[in-house]
Amino acid sequence: MSADDFIVTPWHVEGDIDYDKLIKKFGTEKISSELLDKIKNITNEDHFMLRRGIFFSHREMNRIIEDHQKGKGFFLYTGRGPSGHTHIGHLVPWVFAKWLQEKFDVNLYFQLTDDEKFYSKTNLTLEETNKFAYENALDFIALGFNPEKTKIIINTKNIQTLYPIAAQVAKKINFSNTKATFGFTNETNIGMIFYTSLQSAPCFIEDKPVLIPLGVDQDPHFRLTRDIAQKIGKQKPALIHNIMIPALTGPGGKMSASEEKGTIYTTDSPDVVKKKINKFAFSGGQPDIEQHRKLGGNPDIDVSYQYLRIFFEPNDEKLKKIYDDYKSGKLLSGELKSILIEKINEFLKTHQEKREKAKQQIEQFLLQNK
Amino acid sequence: MSADDFIVTPWHVEGDIDYDKLIKKFGTEKISSELLDKIKNITNEDHFMLRRGIFFSHREMNRIIEDHQKGKGFFLYTGRGPSGHTHIGHLVPWVFAKWLQEKFDVNLYFQLTDDEKFYSKTNLTLEETNKFAYENALDFIALGFNPEKTKIIINTKNIQTLYPIAAQVAKKINFSNTKATFGFTNETNIGMIFYTSLQSAPCFIEDKPVLIPLGVDQDPHFRLTRDIAQKIGKQKPALIHNIMIPALTGPGGKMSASEEKGTIYTTDSPDVVKKKINKFAFSGGQPDIEQHRKLGGNPDIDVSYQYLRIFFEPNDEKLKKIYDDYKSGKLLSGELKSILIEKINEFLKTHQEKREKAKQQIEQFLLQNK
Repeated sequence: MSADDFIVTPWHVEGDIDYDKLIKKFGTEKISSELLDKIKNITNEDHFMLRRGIFFSHREMNRIIEDHQKGKGFFLYTGRGPSGHTHIGHLVPWVFAKWLQEKFDVNLYFQLTDDEKFYSKTNLTLEETNKFAYENALDFIALGFNPEKTKIIINTKNIQTLYPIAAQVAKKINFSNTKATFGFTNETNIGMIFYTSLQSAPCFIEDKPVLIPLGVDQDPHFRLTRDIAQKIGKQKPALIHNIMIPALTGPGGKMSASEEKGTIYTTDSPDVVKKKINKFAFSGGQPDIEQHRKLGGNPDIDVSYQYLRIFFEPNDEKLKKIYDDYKSGKLLSGELKSILIEKINEFLKTHQEKREKAKQQIEQFLLQNK
Repeated sequence: MSADDFIVTPWHVEGDIDYDKLIKKFGTEKISSELLDKIKNITNEDHFMLRRGIFFSHREMNRIIEDHQKGKGFFLYTGRGPSGHTHIGHLVPWVFAKWLQEKFDVNLYFQLTDDEKFYSKTNLTLEETNKFAYENALDFIALGFNPEKTKIIINTKNIQTLYPIAAQVAKKINFSNTKATFGFTNETNIGMIFYTSLQSAPCFIEDKPVLIPLGVDQDPHFRLTRDIAQKIGKQKPALIHNIMIPALTGPGGKMSASEEKGTIYTTDSPDVVKKKINKFAFSGGQPDIEQHRKLGGNPDIDVSYQYLRIFFEPNDEKLKKIYDDYKSGKLLSGELKSILIEKINEFLKTHQEKREKAKQQIEQFLLQNK
C-alpha cells in the first residue's frame, strides 16, 4: 500500500483517507457551498458538522431539499453495527441525524445490525451482538430523540418487518454485484452475502423518499440499493456522508469499537477517559517542550484536536484559538489533551445519566412488528 | 445429455433418473431389507411406499430407529415450495410423513417456502407465492393431521422464528459450498444464495434429532445442513427420500406444478382429471388395439400404472393384476386410464371436501412466532 493508498469498505477502513479521491472512487458528490446555503436557509442554522466538512459528501441531497421545499415529505434512516459498546465516534451521525430530524420535523429509523456483526466477526455470538444492540440503543436514546417520531430497528427482533422488503431487494442483486461492491470472495459466508439486502430494507419502510446520514464507509451498501431501487418500483435513497472518526492512536483507520485502547466508550469513567487520552491519543506535538515551544504542534494530525473539531468544540472561535495556540507552540500537547479530557468527561457525565434513564424508555423506541 | 444422463437439483429435474446411480452420486444409502424389517417391527405395518421402493433411500434412518428404540425422541419435518397449486405428486411425502407421525407419535413441522419460490421464479411475486403457500396448506391439512402435534411454517410469516437459527447455519456456509452443492453462479441472486439456511432452520427448531421424509431432489439442502450441523453443536438431520413422481406426459422430469398439462391439481374437477389423463397421460401401450392385444403394454413406463403404484392402489394383489393384465395385452391403455381416473376422482372428492373444511382449521396449524 503506497502512502496515498487507503481502503474504505463497510467492514475495513485502513490508511490515510484522501476524501477528494474517495468522492471520485465512490462516485458521490462533494457538498457544495450552494448546497450548504440551501440547508442553512431552510434550517436557519449553520451546523458546525456541515460548516467544518465533517459531513463532506452526498448523493442526491439536492433532491431531498427540493422535494422538501415543494412540501413533499421524506424520512431519515441511520444505524450502527453492534460489535461492542458505543464509542464517541459513533455519535457523530446520530447527533447530526437528530439535528436534521428536528429541523425538518421527520421520522427517523435507527437500525442495529446484530446479524451483520455476527456474520462478520468470527468470535461473536448472535447473543452477544444482540446484547450490544440493546446497549448501543441506550446511547442512541440518551441523545434525546422523540419516541413519537423515532423507531429503533434491531435486525433479529424486527426481521419479520424487514425480510419481505429485503427479499424484493435480494432478488435483484446477484453474487457478482456483491463481489464488485464489497470485494466478497467464494469464501464469504452466505449470511454476509445476503446481509446487504437487510441494510437496504429500512430505505423502503415508509412509502416516502429517505435521507441517510452515515459514515462514508457504509456508502457501498446504498450504492447497491440505489442501483436496484427503480427495479422494485422505489425511489433511490439519498445520502449524506461523514468522514471517518480517527482512532485515538492516530490516523490510519476509523475508531473501532473492537480495539480497546484506540477507543473511548460512552461507558468509560472520567479516570479511564483521562488515562486513555493521556496514554494513547496520537499527538501532533514535538518530542519535547522546548522544541514544541519553538516549532509548534500540528493540529491537523493531532487526534485530540480532531476530536474537538469533529464533536466536542462546536464554537468556531474557541476552536480557532486552540488551533492557533497549538500551532504556535503556546499550547502544549498535554494541555490540549486536558482540554479534550474535560470536554469529554463533561459530555459523558450527562450522557451516562441519560443513558441510565434510557433503560426505562427503550420499549417506547423499539419498532413493533406488525 | 446421453441416454442415461439425468439432472436432479432442488430446482431442476430432467432426464430418466437411475436411482441406483443417484444414490451413489448423492452419497445416500439404499433402504435395505434389514432397515425395512426394523421399521415393520416397530410400526407393525408394511407401508406400501416402503415395500414398493417409493421411498428408496435414506441418510441415518438407522440412527433414528435405534434412538427411538432406546426411548429417545425425534421429530419430523417436511415441506413444499409453493410455486402453484398442489398437485397429486406432492402428497406422496406428506402422506408418508403422516404415517410416520402416527406410528412414532412425534411432532411434525411442515415448511412452505414462499420466499424460495419468489427468489427462484422470475415471474412470481412474493404475494403470489405467499397466496399459494396458504392454498397448499389447505391440502396438507386436508390429509388429517393432528393440530396438537403438527405445525405449518410459512417462511415469510415465521421468519422471526427461523432467522436466528438460519443465521447460525449461514455463518458456516460459504459461496463455494453453494456453488458445489447447487451449481450456483455469480449471476445467482443473493436471496437464493442465502435461502438454503432457511430450509435448514426447521431441522433445529426442537432440541431433538429430526427425520425428514422428502423428495430426493431436496437432498442437497440437507447435505449442506449435515456438513455444518456439528459446527453449530447440533445433530445431523436424518433423511428418507422418495423418488420423483413422473409428469403426466411421461418420464424425463418430475411432475411440475408450473406446467399445466403435465399436472393434476388437487383442485381439479372430475371432468378435468378425466380429460387430462385421457389426453396427456403417457402410455406404455401399443399404437393400436390389435397390436396391444398381441404384444401387450409396458406398465413400467406407463404413467397411469405408475400413479397407481406410487399412490392410488395400495393393494398389492389388485396392482399385480393390473400389471399382469396390461403386460399381457388383456387390459387396454384406455381401460388402465379409466381405472386411474376413477381412483383419482374418488380420492379428490373426499380430499376437496376436507380441503374446504381446512379453511376453518388453518389458524390452529400455523406456527406462532414467539
